[in-house]
Amino acid sequence: MNTPELGLPMVVPAAGLPARVRIHEVGARDGLQNEKATVPTAVKAEFVRRLAGTGLTTVEATSFVHPKWVPQLADAEELYPAVAGLPVELPVLVPNERGLDRALALGARRVAVFASATESFAKANLNRTVDEALAMFEPVVSRAKAADVHVRGYLSMCFGDPWEGAVPVAQVVKVCRALLDMGCDELSLGDTVGVATPGHVTALLTALTGAGVPVSALGVHFHDTYGQALSNTLAALQQGVTTVDASAGGLGGCPYAKSATGNLATEDLVWMLRGLGIDTGVDLGRLVATSVWMAAHLGRPSPSRTVRALSHQES
Amino acid sequence: MNTPELGLPMVVPAAGLPARVRIHEVGARDGLQNEKATVPTAVKAEFVRRLAGTGLTTVEATSFVHPKWVPQLADAEELYPAVAGLPVELPVLVPNERGLDRALALGARRVAVFASATESFAKANLNRTVDEALAMFEPVVSRAKAADVHVRGYLSMCFGDPWEGAVPVAQVVKVCRALLDMGCDELSLGDTVGVATPGHVTALLTALTGAGVPVSALGVHFHDTYGQALSNTLAALQQGVTTVDASAGGLGGCPYAKSATGNLATEDLVWMLRGLGIDTGVDLGRLVATSVWMAAHLGRPSPSRTVRALSHQES
Repeated sequence: MNTPELGLPMVVPAAGLPARVRIHEVGARDGLQNEKATVPTAVKAEFVRRLAGTGLTTVEATSFVHPKWVPQLADAEELYPAVAGLPVELPVLVPNERGLDRALALGARRVAVFASATESFAKANLNRTVDEALAMFEPVVSRAKAADVHVRGYLSMCFGDPWEGAVPVAQVVKVCRALLDMGCDELSLGDTVGVATPGHVTALLTALTGAGVPVSALGVHFHDTYGQALSNTLAALQQGVTTVDASAGGLGGCPYAKSATGNLATEDLVWMLRGLGIDTGVDLGRLVATSVWMAAHLGRPSPSRTVRALSHQES
Repeated sequence: MNTPELGLPMVVPAAGLPARVRIHEVGARDGLQNEKATVPTAVKAEFVRRLAGTGLTTVEATSFVHPKWVPQLADAEELYPAVAGLPVELPVLVPNERGLDRALALGARRVAVFASATESFAKANLNRTVDEALAMFEPVVSRAKAADVHVRGYLSMCFGDPWEGAVPVAQVVKVCRALLDMGCDELSLGDTVGVATPGHVTALLTALTGAGVPVSALGVHFHDTYGQALSNTLAALQQGVTTVDASAGGLGGCPYAKSATGNLATEDLVWMLRGLGIDTGVDLGRLVATSVWMAAHLGRPSPSRTVRALSHQES
């Protein structure tokens, strides 16, 4: 059928959902660190600037992991000062005290640590047990809090783990409590391999709030590996979650490659939230244009359905 | 991250959802009629056979529309007898009395008519007003019912229309009532341009059940143009819907083309339903293999995230 298309969804709110959602944009960090190509620093800075210009309020900028582990983001010392004046929150990843030192030296006001809900992934990603990793984060968090810096705790493998299979909800709750008790201001519950479904999301969030964790301290981080990210997000919104991680254009994890990790595309999320009448502050057209611009730099189309539909429309 | 992957989601049921969903598989009809390539009859028959072998219970087989309008399915007279003995329901599309005659002559036990909720699409697709189209369907439905044949009514443009914008819920309810009153056994509510979001789905279903339409007579037919099909499906399940249309591999509407209509991929649906503990009877591995086989015939990869993730895993 060859027809013109609507540019925006109709707004029809649903009962029981939040009025506003904060999108935690991870494209410039989680997206680019998973791209094979290393993007020039000037392009990264322009990407962050353009993202900030869409109305997003939180744009994760880079990572102070050792360059040996994430060579794609080895230019953090050059990038961060180039974007630090933007009128948005610019969290950065810090794996340890050395990373925190580097971030604080540049004036970072928001940092994030990266924990695992499972022993297997803690071993694979951090070469530590879960408890050893938490012990490593403790001085990072306490020093950040002493400097009045906001701390996010990423938690990987909250639903399934490639080595361990299904991850018990109680295990996730335990690590969440430990991160909050050491001073993390918010957590991001990651479905690192994309295997969550909505009932699992509801069960985990119910267990966390039942254990006394305020839902305002919880963000969700879904991957679209099996196409489930947006329905999982809907389930999370229905539990009161108001912080959702997403990656502009679905950056991070090529959808054509083995073990695609496919972050939820920010555009697909914004489309749903706008249709639901949930305020995000994001200008969808600008965001799509930014993702089309970055896709040209990377030399491959965005996997986001919304980017494809709206950008083909424009062409 | 290079890790092994889980082959199946964990099962975590959610409250308030149906125990079983009937998937109405439309790949062989709605999928192939929107493909540019015309597939040989023997390949179509094998596709229907393989779909039937996955545990699907309803496989829409073909269309008795005039070959001039849908040349891709001009072989309905050859195809239908080749698959008629399969132990599944095999509905066929009939646009008018001539199409019904052709279908009944071959022993079809389930037919579907194709109506529009909007005047603009009725005019574009059927060259009639909505009322004229309903008048055309009346003898089709009454003759089918007299022959004890099950009748499905497809209703296009239930959410947005490319010419008219948002479609008022009351207008959709009115056409639904007319189709049911003339004898349709079930309706399929189509989001033809993919612009629905979950609140709109809830609003339409609530209005329909409020108008006395039993939810058991309602199916949903979502397109993934903007990535919303599965979250819309979740909203429909939460309203008690137990019939969901989907297309194996996401066939129908190339995701790379302008005006992509992208049917919901059956595999992405089955993944979510399995995770929710909702029975469909479908063997996901067989279904993925069928879509990979058909994708090879069509010469392009399936747009289904689940097909891509699971088939790359196998390769």
